[in-house]
Amino acid sequence: MLPSATNISTGVDGVARQASTALPKQLREHEVLLKITHSGLCHTDLEYLHRGVPLGHEGVGVVAAIGSEVTTLAVGDRAGSGYMNNTCGHCQYCLTGEEVWCYERNVYGESPAISGTFGNYLIGNESFLFKIPEAMESQHAAPMQCAGATVYNALVSNIKSGDRIGIIGIGGLGHLAIQFANKLGAETIVFSTTAGKQAEARSLGASEFYLLDKPEELAKPITMLLLTGAKHPDWSKSLFVGVVLMKVENRFMNDKVIARRGLILTMSIPPEMIELPGLPMCFYGYRVQHSFASSRHAQCDMLDFAARHGIKPLVEIFDMSEVGFSEATEKLRSGKVRYRAVLAAKD
Amino acid sequence: MLPSATNISTGVDGVARQASTALPKQLREHEVLLKITHSGLCHTDLEYLHRGVPLGHEGVGVVAAIGSEVTTLAVGDRAGSGYMNNTCGHCQYCLTGEEVWCYERNVYGESPAISGTFGNYLIGNESFLFKIPEAMESQHAAPMQCAGATVYNALVSNIKSGDRIGIIGIGGLGHLAIQFANKLGAETIVFSTTAGKQAEARSLGASEFYLLDKPEELAKPITMLLLTGAKHPDWSKSLFVGVVLMKVENRFMNDKVIARRGLILTMSIPPEMIELPGLPMCFYGYRVQHSFASSRHAQCDMLDFAARHGIKPLVEIFDMSEVGFSEATEKLRSGKVRYRAVLAAKD
Repeated sequence: MLPSATNISTGVDGVARQASTALPKQLREHEVLLKITHSGLCHTDLEYLHRGVPLGHEGVGVVAAIGSEVTTLAVGDRAGSGYMNNTCGHCQYCLTGEEVWCYERNVYGESPAISGTFGNYLIGNESFLFKIPEAMESQHAAPMQCAGATVYNALVSNIKSGDRIGIIGIGGLGHLAIQFANKLGAETIVFSTTAGKQAEARSLGASEFYLLDKPEELAKPITMLLLTGAKHPDWSKSLFVGVVLMKVENRFMNDKVIARRGLILTMSIPPEMIELPGLPMCFYGYRVQHSFASSRHAQCDMLDFAARHGIKPLVEIFDMSEVGFSEATEKLRSGKVRYRAVLAAKD
Repeated sequence: MLPSATNISTGVDGVARQASTALPKQLREHEVLLKITHSGLCHTDLEYLHRGVPLGHEGVGVVAAIGSEVTTLAVGDRAGSGYMNNTCGHCQYCLTGEEVWCYERNVYGESPAISGTFGNYLIGNESFLFKIPEAMESQHAAPMQCAGATVYNALVSNIKSGDRIGIIGIGGLGHLAIQFANKLGAETIVFSTTAGKQAEARSLGASEFYLLDKPEELAKPITMLLLTGAKHPDWSKSLFVGVVLMKVENRFMNDKVIARRGLILTMSIPPEMIELPGLPMCFYGYRVQHSFASSRHAQCDMLDFAARHGIKPLVEIFDMSEVGFSEATEKLRSGKVRYRAVLAAKD
């Protein structure tokens, strides 16, 4: 008999409520019952506040019970649950380790779920739970389940020798991206609208720092650009068009900001339309794509890599309660969290 | 002593004139003098009509003389000259066989040149001239130097097992893309605004044919989309937004037109701004890039591949003269060339 569970959720009014959730009477063969201790709060959660779905997708806890066939986790292990809860297992995406694109993927907010990670218990499939390395604290492991996995996957799926990696935005994703890019050995170039963030960017691992509206100060073009902010930049005022203008105005001999064939990876939920200037796309060969969460192989690697290199999110802790949830969402919405809000259970 | 040369060019008034071009007194060590017999006409030429530059970048001819160190071509060989005439040879792009992105690239229209391929003689560097296979006629080899290389490079740089390749536009590039995709073994799905083009599309190798505004008739999504037309489609009325609408209207269970993680390759010179709908870029992982001409390794492969498989452009022949040039440009501008205009020398 499984314990009774509670879950923090919001109705269509967006108000947080703690309510009991009916768990099934027993676990299925490959299911695991996780007693959640920590859960990260992400901008994606804010998007889903008014949908009446169970909230939370960056959870870490302790295994409380396992199904009869579970072999990868044991009672007492710490494990994490992220953005994706299941996939079909037999399509071309699943068969090539790219299951994050599976048409049958069960991901946060898109698919029915009985519980999110803002609560006390969560049932997951052992194949979609990730054992937490000894060296990583649970409060740090929680935001790694989505934010950490997303930026690490974007980097390792694309990085190549000699890359100069530009990162726009020092926030929930950006402050992790700086650490990962640096530890992956890349030149790590941070762009921000705020001069005051330079010291912190450098302490996280930035090798160079520029104001977003002064990209022409770059000595050498970047080869990969990660857009980690919650908002897409207005390209008409920033790097991209900067490149065009530079060319047109002949202020520079050539494309000084983003190297030819550069890869631009967007990470936040994009606006309705993305507008890109045509000529640099053509003559400089820029590639644009969104980096969407992570398949499991990269998520596993990420946890090991982060533990080995001491990479961890800077977190602000809130209570795992209605009040804590409301405080955390309010602070996240105001853009004041430095840099990842985590709800922690009291017991 | 090199012969005197003439070249068809246009001043800023856009009017074609045949004028003599001063060739240097002798070839440099690695230079080759090509007596041009055929030159393809491309939409890119129309873009440069009013710039006062030597015109033409899809030329084929017979080697008339070689510099003292030339080893890859001999007098009497047929060779082609394409979009790119030189690169630095030592940057990361050049060293990795991606010299089409070299910052010092010397390409048609962007760089000074003493002669284009609309003329009787052209001097090229042996490293940027391509020997024409025996089995390929010169009239067919000419459009392959840019159009053929561009579409082949786009395909082979990205194709993978199981790809369903969509091609929008049956024109100068598109009618070659259909042939190459088919012979590369891919399912080849053609989209057109004109129902009457179905028979020709199928004779070129299309395995499926759909009207552009009825993508929902697809039985299975495409995985790579080539936009070969001279104009970019209005996405707000075509495939992309089609996908969004399908999802929103629940007419289909999922993304039926472009498969998740699909690659969209644009080929024509793009409009000032490219507008892409944000949500499919994010949740379906679409990748967008421009396919810009071709590096040399793919251009060499392309000539062999085309000769082996009997792939050739459908051409309309015009005189290599002021009159022929004007007739050809006029017909190209009106969109009536089926499918590639070639100027042929009389002697």
